[in-house]
Amino acid sequence: MPSILNHITDPAQIKGLSLAELEQLAGELRARIIEVCAANGGHLAPSLGVVELTIALHRVFDSPEDKIVWDVGHQAYAHKLLTGRNDSFGTLRTLGGISGFPKRAESLHDVFDVGHSSTSISAALGLGVARDLSERHNKVLAVIGDGSMTGGIAFEALNHAGHLNKDLVVILNDNEMSISENVGALSNLLSRTITSEFVHKAKKDLEAFLEKLPKFGKSALQVAKRAEESLKGLFTPGMLFEAFGFEYIGPIDGHNIPQLLDTLESVKRFDDAVLIHVLTKKGKGYPAAEANPSLFHGVGPFEPETGKVLKGKGGAASYTGIFGETMKKLAVENDKIVAVTAAMPDGTGLSPFGKEYPERFFDVGIAEQHAVTFAAGLAAQGLRPVVALYSSFLQRGYDQLAHDVCLQDLPVLFAIDRAGVVGNDGPTHHGVFDLSYLRLLPGITVMAPKDENELQHMLYTGLQLPGPSAVRYPRGSGCGVPIDQIFKALPVGKGELLRQGKDGAILAVGAMVQPALEAADLLAKEGVEVAVMNVRFVKPLDRELILKLAGTGRLFTVEDNVVQGGFGTSVLELLEEEELTGVTVTRLGYPDSFVEQGEQAELRASYGLDAAGIGNSVRGVVTRA
Amino acid sequence: MPSILNHITDPAQIKGLSLAELEQLAGELRARIIEVCAANGGHLAPSLGVVELTIALHRVFDSPEDKIVWDVGHQAYAHKLLTGRNDSFGTLRTLGGISGFPKRAESLHDVFDVGHSSTSISAALGLGVARDLSERHNKVLAVIGDGSMTGGIAFEALNHAGHLNKDLVVILNDNEMSISENVGALSNLLSRTITSEFVHKAKKDLEAFLEKLPKFGKSALQVAKRAEESLKGLFTPGMLFEAFGFEYIGPIDGHNIPQLLDTLESVKRFDDAVLIHVLTKKGKGYPAAEANPSLFHGVGPFEPETGKVLKGKGGAASYTGIFGETMKKLAVENDKIVAVTAAMPDGTGLSPFGKEYPERFFDVGIAEQHAVTFAAGLAAQGLRPVVALYSSFLQRGYDQLAHDVCLQDLPVLFAIDRAGVVGNDGPTHHGVFDLSYLRLLPGITVMAPKDENELQHMLYTGLQLPGPSAVRYPRGSGCGVPIDQIFKALPVGKGELLRQGKDGAILAVGAMVQPALEAADLLAKEGVEVAVMNVRFVKPLDRELILKLAGTGRLFTVEDNVVQGGFGTSVLELLEEEELTGVTVTRLGYPDSFVEQGEQAELRASYGLDAAGIGNSVRGVVTRA
Repeated sequence: MPSILNHITDPAQIKGLSLAELEQLAGELRARIIEVCAANGGHLAPSLGVVELTIALHRVFDSPEDKIVWDVGHQAYAHKLLTGRNDSFGTLRTLGGISGFPKRAESLHDVFDVGHSSTSISAALGLGVARDLSERHNKVLAVIGDGSMTGGIAFEALNHAGHLNKDLVVILNDNEMSISENVGALSNLLSRTITSEFVHKAKKDLEAFLEKLPKFGKSALQVAKRAEESLKGLFTPGMLFEAFGFEYIGPIDGHNIPQLLDTLESVKRFDDAVLIHVLTKKGKGYPAAEANPSLFHGVGPFEPETGKVLKGKGGAASYTGIFGETMKKLAVENDKIVAVTAAMPDGTGLSPFGKEYPERFFDVGIAEQHAVTFAAGLAAQGLRPVVALYSSFLQRGYDQLAHDVCLQDLPVLFAIDRAGVVGNDGPTHHGVFDLSYLRLLPGITVMAPKDENELQHMLYTGLQLPGPSAVRYPRGSGCGVPIDQIFKALPVGKGELLRQGKDGAILAVGAMVQPALEAADLLAKEGVEVAVMNVRFVKPLDRELILKLAGTGRLFTVEDNVVQGGFGTSVLELLEEEELTGVTVTRLGYPDSFVEQGEQAELRASYGLDAAGIGNSVRGVVTRA
Repeated sequence: MPSILNHITDPAQIKGLSLAELEQLAGELRARIIEVCAANGGHLAPSLGVVELTIALHRVFDSPEDKIVWDVGHQAYAHKLLTGRNDSFGTLRTLGGISGFPKRAESLHDVFDVGHSSTSISAALGLGVARDLSERHNKVLAVIGDGSMTGGIAFEALNHAGHLNKDLVVILNDNEMSISENVGALSNLLSRTITSEFVHKAKKDLEAFLEKLPKFGKSALQVAKRAEESLKGLFTPGMLFEAFGFEYIGPIDGHNIPQLLDTLESVKRFDDAVLIHVLTKKGKGYPAAEANPSLFHGVGPFEPETGKVLKGKGGAASYTGIFGETMKKLAVENDKIVAVTAAMPDGTGLSPFGKEYPERFFDVGIAEQHAVTFAAGLAAQGLRPVVALYSSFLQRGYDQLAHDVCLQDLPVLFAIDRAGVVGNDGPTHHGVFDLSYLRLLPGITVMAPKDENELQHMLYTGLQLPGPSAVRYPRGSGCGVPIDQIFKALPVGKGELLRQGKDGAILAVGAMVQPALEAADLLAKEGVEVAVMNVRFVKPLDRELILKLAGTGRLFTVEDNVVQGGFGTSVLELLEEEELTGVTVTRLGYPDSFVEQGEQAELRASYGLDAAGIGNSVRGVVTRA
């Protein structure tokens, strides 16, 4: 059978295909997605779940004139393949390759850049309002998962969209998952496992209502009494959305192309706000992913035949894994410790803790704002909450961190995973701003471990502090060092001098300590002796040690963070406060632009943040003198 | 009649009062609140609206053992008066006085610090979970306005709370207002003006349901057909909350003490999540505030007899007012300009624009996240959105600013009002972090005007740029300068040298320019000649001019912002990048701690940010040399 996919360069070509050809195309899309994800890693399960939906959308609507906004965007691989990117799809998520997320710079068919969850209704409403003001007549569609729907911004957008009642189609892609299993009342509502109290109350309301009608009172009341079970059917998932002013359609089978086409065709004629509830299966069509959609949500390279995930080279435990282990150990010692995550029990490594201490573990859904303030509430009553989030998602809780945690000086510990460059997920997911935006908040202690052993000690240290603290650590493997069996409280605001040197000093933060040491080794062979400091505390600074090292005349700060306002800058501030002039400071980090996608190691190297790059920077300054 | 209020030092004393005495107490609370707000200014209307509710809460529950979390907290004056703070209430909102918001440091009865909206359910859920883990048995209550309910974090919290179903009482204080009039579908739902589509659909659902029951089909169907009108009664505001797993009670009259007491007493015995819907009138009991609740939401000093608001001394127009005027002028010239605010049409000065261009004006409710991403959507389709927010509330949209606006390099202009210290609202509302957290984002242009005339030119300039920009300006009066009739595009990244000087240079940002000039005048009389630069652009920096001024050997940076990571720090970064050592830099701004409440002028003076303070700092460095 000749390939259909290989001949599609524009989504308009789909309109001419027969139903059988569409089904064939679905199979080809799945095969291509599996093939490339197996090689490059990627968001396999979400993309497999919406293959038929994507085909149907491009069949019925006219992209790019009609605008399709993909929430999060990790499900948009089929969309990419159908919009002229089949040839380049092999470069998915690689340095210089095409993005794992929709990107306006990449295609006219990508109308809004995404990566973080729950923005699609807001963005689509903006596109819709702009259309109306420009008197254009295209359709605007947002495709949003049920997990994304728990994010507060999605609710804010629903509330506003219902109020404006613009021509807007929201497609609720309901796979009963966010990244892991879904949580929350909304999820229950969607899956119709509505609380019995709710049904009971609704029955009473209906009875009372029918009783008020005298003529038919009796028989109607009997109807109502008999109808207790059927009432669940009356209170549909649509209620919520209808209450917000949306027309509700569904639920429909998201893998049934004819049903999808019928529904979308009918919706095309509406000009109100409509929500279509589509049921899909995450990982659909690839048995390994269907069986374990959480593992295959975002997955590294795997064996396509078996679904066996290929391990990286190192045997070193990941920071994430050590965090999870540490939390379990800490919890034994201290029953005040509780853990909070926002839809990332696996990603943050908290699942084992959650299994062992279900009553002390809180997955709040994709809801970073609530996660932070909820933790503040826990801390206000004497508990010791640990909030585990990815660096770039903590931006969602920034006001809560400032206003609810720091201003009250509450002892919430933030375990910030995926700090620094994360790799192939690219700029939406890199955590390269946190040192800058954290350290400007009064009262917070900010730590970064040089290895996975120090991570556990920093977590322990943070939990001894009377106020807020944060430990930020990178994605991926640790350094393979032994893990101490006994926790140590590190002296707050004290760094660690790892190596002496008279020609200058490298002040390295977290994951940059190891390459800094290697750089110092390289330089020593050339006769350049630089000290290396493991910074440990980005806030408060080890003023004493840094000032001492400033005596060498040359400081090199290295951080897996932007140079604007980061650790290196805080060293400049220190020198200014101490009125110490005449010291040459060189700040190494990411520049004032968004960092692209690529392997972590590639990116670090290209920005001079590996041993060679650090060595070059030091050499450049020292040999010039 | 002897005063009851004057004898209450502990809320437990309320329990012994008769109903008549409670009514008298309500009157006394109102009189005291009006008296002090008339003198000090304050959140009059919100606090007057919940006098009876506050009495009833303290009568039925046992604070501080039972925990009452006030959302936003601007309605907690009666709570303060009943919990031992009647004597000190005259110091409300003054330097060293009691806060306008609940504060844990102030009283055991204030269980969670607030100021920003929509956090109470998250916090209360945290308090409730902590209670259960500690096996205590107190009640936890959140009092949240219907306006606050539109904030995404409130929804995130409802979703989680419904899921956990803890013993938690949410009191929805429904006054059909947020700060100004409420917007959004939620508001319609609460006020039962449910869309006719919704009722129509519900009727069809009910008909279909009844038709399925063969025996009683016919009469029941007739019931349903006759019941069209009555159906509105079936779909109550409670549906939404019941769907989230809350027991719903209400609506009840929030000014009827016996009804409040009955309801709260019955709720006291529940141990599930309950929502009580209480209807109140904002400004209740003070005719001027009832008639104009938006004006009296947060009001300056006024004449208590008449409600006439007392004007400040200056006749200078406010920055807010000039922003509003400018927006109207800009809109005439450019029909792409649209404006977005988050429940602050009056506070941001956008109301006149909204009246003139209703179709180009969007009040999205208390929903900063959505405001920002919605604007990104508008910009992605070629419009020029201006998002007007208060500085400290922009923190709520930080991720959206980074991820949806800056990463896509979309031309959204942020008009950031209330930047710097805001005065009596205190630390929750000061906007002293924005320069630091904005300038670390790639691609954004950050401006601050030296006066209200420059404000209009900066807005115009921002609207010419191809990417994101921000103009931040203070609360209160401008400098009284004439307003140019023709807009000027300022050269991007160029400051303005206002005064020459050989002994050093003051680089002043925004509202600090005027005091810097005055300081230079003072110093000149002493023979010290310092240059003064109006920085204008905090990002990108005017590298050339700053480096030139560095030639004086002494730079003094002055900003109405924390010194961590702010403008002054960016000057340090510039000197480091240029490898220019030997320049003395002195950074003036707020220190690394939260700034207390007080008059703007008092606070600036106490942190050395007035003419005298700047002069002292400069003199200290120059004369030492």
